[in-house]
Amino acid sequence: MTVLEEIKAANDVYAQSFGEKSTLALPPARGFAILTCMDARLDPAKYAGLSEGDAHVIRNAGGRASDDAIRSLVISYKLLGTREWFVIHHTNCGMEFFTDDVIRGLLANSLDTAALGEAGFYDIGTGPGSAEAKYIDWLTISDQASSVLEDVERIKAHPLIPRNIPIHGYIYDVASGRLIEVPAATAAGSKQ
Amino acid sequence: MTVLEEIKAANDVYAQSFGEKSTLALPPARGFAILTCMDARLDPAKYAGLSEGDAHVIRNAGGRASDDAIRSLVISYKLLGTREWFVIHHTNCGMEFFTDDVIRGLLANSLDTAALGEAGFYDIGTGPGSAEAKYIDWLTISDQASSVLEDVERIKAHPLIPRNIPIHGYIYDVASGRLIEVPAATAAGSKQ
Repeated sequence: MTVLEEIKAANDVYAQSFGEKSTLALPPARGFAILTCMDARLDPAKYAGLSEGDAHVIRNAGGRASDDAIRSLVISYKLLGTREWFVIHHTNCGMEFFTDDVIRGLLANSLDTAALGEAGFYDIGTGPGSAEAKYIDWLTISDQASSVLEDVERIKAHPLIPRNIPIHGYIYDVASGRLIEVPAATAAGSKQ
Repeated sequence: MTVLEEIKAANDVYAQSFGEKSTLALPPARGFAILTCMDARLDPAKYAGLSEGDAHVIRNAGGRASDDAIRSLVISYKLLGTREWFVIHHTNCGMEFFTDDVIRGLLANSLDTAALGEAGFYDIGTGPGSAEAKYIDWLTISDQASSVLEDVERIKAHPLIPRNIPIHGYIYDVASGRLIEVPAATAAGSKQ
């Protein structure tokens, strides 16, 4: 089966036992939102115990507090009433293994998929590439605890975010499945 | 229990039976990515049949092809080898119930959560507000099929995206749990 056929078959099974989920309300029933990474190993519904209808889940490369994540968070509380947020990065994140210069160089050379070796990513494509990557901030990560704290602070300081929304910083350990708290004091003064 | 205590308790149960998931590889095993909405009623792992390690999942308000979603998609294929993508919006999306002018007006008046009535969102907060919302494109939706096609086309036309990546457009029906294809021809010529 192709990926598309597999998804259609899985969706058919899901829809056949959909039951009471058809009447779920639009606003999250448990009133919170999670911002986390797109990484395939992470399933926020499973690692945080969410059922359909419970919470907003925002995901991007790194789980970063990008402008778009902030757009989503503002809509989440202002229009849909969430009142508590979680920023959850994770161990062994792909965003730790490259820098802006690396991905800009790779994409300038070729749009094809690169390979990951012991020394990092290297280009196996034959082009064409694009210089467009120079105009994007890739939001890479050099230290997980610092990136979590930096993102929590960015959200807290945003002019559209009320000061009284609790924002919790966590790291998900892909080796154990455990959420590890990042206390605000741990990396005081650290920047990345 | 507080939300935080509930999440910790659920995570503890998950981690205790983590098993072989501790050895999952970083690149998505099934080689695809899903871009979908943050809506609480959507669980992409369930509606598309994903296990941990299978696929990248990118989520924001509306499931829109924002600059940040494109950042994530480029990282997904260039560094982590996905080769097929799905853009999945959904029925009864909150992004259909307001416009840029509405959310800008609400936030200018008060940062507090608004209420949703029959005539749309209305402000129940007492301020202070912020004019910062004027500087954000909220990526609202007026027609689901058009927004899916618009986003698929934006991704396909991006200078950093190879032309040979298949991108499928779907709408998830929150009343039935079913994925409904949005064929490229359906809304030819329509814009939103």
